Amino acid sequence: MKTPLKSFWYKYQERWMQTGSLVCVGLDSDIKLLPDCLKYSENPIWEFNRRIIDSTQEYTACYKPNLAFYLSDGLRGLDALIKTMEYIPPEIPTILDCKVGDIGNTMDSYVWAFLETIGADSITVNPLMGRDVLDSLAKRDNGFGFVLTLTSNPSAADFLQQQNLCEHIAELVTTYPKAQMGCVVGATQTPDLARMRKLLPQRIFLIPGIGAQGGSLEAVMKYAVDSKEKPDILINSSRGIIFRDHSTRFDYIAGEETRKLKESIEELL
Amino acid sequence: MKTPLKSFWYKYQERWMQTGSLVCVGLDSDIKLLPDCLKYSENPIWEFNRRIIDSTQEYTACYKPNLAFYLSDGLRGLDALIKTMEYIPPEIPTILDCKVGDIGNTMDSYVWAFLETIGADSITVNPLMGRDVLDSLAKRDNGFGFVLTLTSNPSAADFLQQQNLCEHIAELVTTYPKAQMGCVVGATQTPDLARMRKLLPQRIFLIPGIGAQGGSLEAVMKYAVDSKEKPDILINSSRGIIFRDHSTRFDYIAGEETRKLKESIEELL
Repeated sequence: MKTPLKSFWYKYQERWMQTGSLVCVGLDSDIKLLPDCLKYSENPIWEFNRRIIDSTQEYTACYKPNLAFYLSDGLRGLDALIKTMEYIPPEIPTILDCKVGDIGNTMDSYVWAFLETIGADSITVNPLMGRDVLDSLAKRDNGFGFVLTLTSNPSAADFLQQQNLCEHIAELVTTYPKAQMGCVVGATQTPDLARMRKLLPQRIFLIPGIGAQGGSLEAVMKYAVDSKEKPDILINSSRGIIFRDHSTRFDYIAGEETRKLKESIEELL
Repeated sequence: MKTPLKSFWYKYQERWMQTGSLVCVGLDSDIKLLPDCLKYSENPIWEFNRRIIDSTQEYTACYKPNLAFYLSDGLRGLDALIKTMEYIPPEIPTILDCKVGDIGNTMDSYVWAFLETIGADSITVNPLMGRDVLDSLAKRDNGFGFVLTLTSNPSAADFLQQQNLCEHIAELVTTYPKAQMGCVVGATQTPDLARMRKLLPQRIFLIPGIGAQGGSLEAVMKYAVDSKEKPDILINSSRGIIFRDHSTRFDYIAGEETRKLKESIEELL
């Protein structure tokens, strides 16, 4: 069990100042997609993550494992997740992508599970059930949540983009301190990025959807960045980094892809 | 790994016909609330659940463990959840309360984790990200989801009860077969129960909020039941059953509470 000594907010700011990186490496370590060379490892996901972290950490602002891919490998997968969190250097902040959204003592238990038992610095949160969902995080000194505000999938149009739901969620977020709540804002919805930034100044945006899902890095850098000095964004890339190569050199290639994404972001800033 | 041979829908109907029970026992087995007599067990949650299942199964239509309370006990907690699912007699359907809502290969992985690795017959689903969330379940023959449609917490008023969001979710649910999608409809929102039932005939409603959260059983039985012959409801009780007593007789008392709730429902049907 790793207790975060510094909050996500603090780690994020410090990491930005020290490395200039805004890249979030998504550890969507789907066991079905791992390179063949890891097939007979005792714990393939853990072995994969260890090598990815070794090769990418120099260029990385943040790591974001996605809970689904760990639970699907059962006890061994949860063990890989815990080992991964312990292995990530303490100065690099982490997000557990779990998109949970429950209330009361259930949400308290999730927050305990993810921040204490698993050792993440922050989690993604689904706000459908309203303010009650956010209170478990807000009452912790070191809690930080990324609230699903506008996502990058096609059917975000079903609810989030209807009747200003994403704006209403943004309004709810603004009632919490910036050091406790950020937002997930999908990058394929570029016309909406500027609107979200205007509603949510100085909030950290976790931005998925670049690359595989078709989002434009140029648009993100133009519309979502807060300021050149304090951009307040994290640009996530998962498959484009960790599954770019399936040979024994997968880790080297992942490092190179992370470096390239970091540099592309710097050029556009 | 337990592969469900029969779908949740089939098991639910058969269980209703054979036992006349509509009680869903919520296995919210929070390790902090377990009776003292289990404190020194090797795996307290598993030991607790085993005794609760032994004493309640005669009167139970369905069991619903809540993922949060298992993850908060780490690897041992996940092990307790897997053992619990294996132990529940195959004729009693199960719901894993996880409220996940992700998309694409992430949601595929959650569905695999919960229905295959953990062995649940169904899960609860958060539809905020739209139709994409439901497709991973819908493409499986034996998949079944309970979609959060209207919840029983106070801040359901923030989004679900605004601008007919719950009705829009209900409309989305109606585009899927009844044998694949049910709904979570909170019982403290009694004025809304009849409206939801009218929109969603013959859907199975999972109804939380009776007892601890102040919902009225009379109102549920009056407004949410589909028909006397096929009620299509499950009335969940968690703390009111499993934590009613904290002595060494906790399991006996849980059995009695389950029997009483089953009988109260029968009287009102």
